[in-house]
Amino acid sequence: MRQVTLGVGISLDGYIARPDGSVDFLFMPKDYSMAPFFKRVDVAVMGRKTYEMALKLGGGSIAGGGLEYYVFSRSLDVGQRAGVTFVKDPPTALIGALRKKKGKDIWLMGGGELTRAFLKDDLVDELYLGVVPVLIGQGIPAFPSGFPERQFKLTENKTYSRGLIALRYQRQPGKSGKAGRRT
Amino acid sequence: MRQVTLGVGISLDGYIARPDGSVDFLFMPKDYSMAPFFKRVDVAVMGRKTYEMALKLGGGSIAGGGLEYYVFSRSLDVGQRAGVTFVKDPPTALIGALRKKKGKDIWLMGGGELTRAFLKDDLVDELYLGVVPVLIGQGIPAFPSGFPERQFKLTENKTYSRGLIALRYQRQPGKSGKAGRRT
Repeated sequence: MRQVTLGVGISLDGYIARPDGSVDFLFMPKDYSMAPFFKRVDVAVMGRKTYEMALKLGGGSIAGGGLEYYVFSRSLDVGQRAGVTFVKDPPTALIGALRKKKGKDIWLMGGGELTRAFLKDDLVDELYLGVVPVLIGQGIPAFPSGFPERQFKLTENKTYSRGLIALRYQRQPGKSGKAGRRT
Repeated sequence: MRQVTLGVGISLDGYIARPDGSVDFLFMPKDYSMAPFFKRVDVAVMGRKTYEMALKLGGGSIAGGGLEYYVFSRSLDVGQRAGVTFVKDPPTALIGALRKKKGKDIWLMGGGELTRAFLKDDLVDELYLGVVPVLIGQGIPAFPSGFPERQFKLTENKTYSRGLIALRYQRQPGKSGKAGRRT
């Protein structure tokens, strides 16, 4: 079964970005590598705002890295353009379709609104959080309120230089919601 | 110098309590002990709502444990009653006065509103967070928005049974705000 992993960097007060979308407070320490994670995934899904921020950070393009990209948007036209597939369907439809195909795991890149939708539908199998040691005081929350309680099991806790902590949690089936429910 | 340590248990999505103030999602694993922490502190300060919840959980009393208790409240009369000193002063005044006296460290028990006031005034020297592996989806945030950015340094990261993580962070002086400023 292809897993959905929410993989995001967050401040200590739980923000994925500042109010204007900037992520300058996040950092990647020298002794940390995303390579093992990238080896595990072949699809990346994200919300429209996260896509636009990724475009900005990537100099106008996010395609590449051997990943298939899907962007959820209510406003943009559906279809494939510039290496990205734009979708309007509910998350369950896309994830259900992807799970029927063979492949690696699915990276949920955020942002907050899409994460909430995924958590509402209990589509998140794993959390992979990079926590930086700063309280930024305001911003875009990683987990905006408005979804049912979801229990997880801690599977990894590693400290890197400059105080980065990488935490991995696996959804605990049968607790607080219908885990295991699949389309 | 007596340190102020914010010591709270939080959900993975950063809540100290459910919307109604209940904290049933928090737990204390068998291999974890608060004893070393209690040895370091001799004063506990909290907001009025946290006090009322502590009273409820403590069966009508919070006094004891060799701690001096201070409760910040705009609505309750100031003065000492039932082992608790009620104050209306700004946090800087009380913390400044406590720091002039000899003593152990000061435990900031929360809640969110008082934590925000302490962080605004840069009075928090240390964070001691117990993170439980559950997303509760809504509640009272540990770090409500509305304070300037504060940098910290990770000093401890321990995993306990049932997925509890204890994180300790020290305020990093000279970064993002006037750390070291004292009344």
